Amino acid sequence: MSIQMNQSLSVDCAVFGFDGRTLKVLLIERRYYAPDTQLDRLKLPGAMILENETLPNAAIRVLEEATGLRKVYLKQIDIFSDPARVSGEELKWINRHHGTHSERVVTVGYYALVKLDDRTVAYTTAKGAQWVAVESIVRLAMDHKQILSAALTLLCREMCQSPVAFELLPRKFTIRQLQTLYGAVLGIEIDNRNFRKKILASGFLCPTSEHEQGVAHKPAQYYVFNRAAYKKAVKEKLRLGFIDNWRY
Amino acid sequence: MSIQMNQSLSVDCAVFGFDGRTLKVLLIERRYYAPDTQLDRLKLPGAMILENETLPNAAIRVLEEATGLRKVYLKQIDIFSDPARVSGEELKWINRHHGTHSERVVTVGYYALVKLDDRTVAYTTAKGAQWVAVESIVRLAMDHKQILSAALTLLCREMCQSPVAFELLPRKFTIRQLQTLYGAVLGIEIDNRNFRKKILASGFLCPTSEHEQGVAHKPAQYYVFNRAAYKKAVKEKLRLGFIDNWRY
Repeated sequence: MSIQMNQSLSVDCAVFGFDGRTLKVLLIERRYYAPDTQLDRLKLPGAMILENETLPNAAIRVLEEATGLRKVYLKQIDIFSDPARVSGEELKWINRHHGTHSERVVTVGYYALVKLDDRTVAYTTAKGAQWVAVESIVRLAMDHKQILSAALTLLCREMCQSPVAFELLPRKFTIRQLQTLYGAVLGIEIDNRNFRKKILASGFLCPTSEHEQGVAHKPAQYYVFNRAAYKKAVKEKLRLGFIDNWRY
Repeated sequence: MSIQMNQSLSVDCAVFGFDGRTLKVLLIERRYYAPDTQLDRLKLPGAMILENETLPNAAIRVLEEATGLRKVYLKQIDIFSDPARVSGEELKWINRHHGTHSERVVTVGYYALVKLDDRTVAYTTAKGAQWVAVESIVRLAMDHKQILSAALTLLCREMCQSPVAFELLPRKFTIRQLQTLYGAVLGIEIDNRNFRKKILASGFLCPTSEHEQGVAHKPAQYYVFNRAAYKKAVKEKLRLGFIDNWRY
């Protein structure tokens, strides 16, 4: 085997949002060229790395172009370097689209969490992008379904270990909204009373004086995330591990 | 800015070993070409990615070529994609050495942990490689000092959170050896009695019937790592995080 020549480096971003019921991911429609109309139409937002740009900066650029947002939760998933990840017509599409002559494209996957407020939805809609329910996605362009699956796996883990869920919720939210989000991402049934009890016992939520308005059922109270309390708890808590805490 | 063309992808490995006193890293001497004799001489083992090879497989290949070992602890550190990470004479050296025409090299750093037994040391010595005390290293070729620093940071974190230390020790070891290793990696003074008490209380060490031989002081007992007990403890223990354990 010889050294790989003529390769490109790209970034692809799985941008997640939550509409109150379902976990969604931002997809863009790609431009077809005559010979490749059989290729899958929808893809994750992505780009080739530019000269004078690091990979994380490329991801930030892609995210800003796709959502209009700069300060969002953004994390590397993995490097996708399978030599066969794009080939044939898919590789031709890439080379035509970018004006490159690559024989191989290695991509670094990122995932981002954004609040699906009116402004962001208006921005992405104007751009022609779509927020698609993650559970409904069967196929995507290239290996983007695989990148999406890796992003989801990571998101599930993160949501159990750290307070990333609040990146997907409005600043003020009901406990039911939080529970629905966890259920949607983890794909599990969550017991109402247990969830409410445990989440309130954690001390990480602060009640506000506001309640839901114009709902048929009893209006639920709004809460905000208490980041300071969370940070304090993390500091005090022992870390999971072999050497627990003997060095401190 | 335009899309980056003519780029290479490489892997570089920080291979750590412990000689009973000091943390060492495997360095190789690079071949000089007439104009570049001012460049730093020592570098981490690394390679360009080959056709039909993933990045993790490239790292496994580099590691095997450098140490003769296949089944070792190997973990990705980070992607180093600063456009200026190799340039000028360093870039010329790379292109000359590999027969490439790259304008940029993005590298993925890995770190590996190996047991410095006679066989491995004989293998690396025969290859002309050197085990150098990490604390003595001031400069390395290209940005390898930075990659080494990132590897060390990760190793410190891993050693506090999981039982990776045993990858660096012989199968049978004394508690003093384990303590010396932690002290060497973390760069801290560790209290003998506290360490001994805590490590034995963890239940993760099994005593053997063997003791040190031919030592001037009282011969210390040998222990082995009880991986089964560790795995059981991890399962039972709550994970650090926001949602502790409510879903289980």
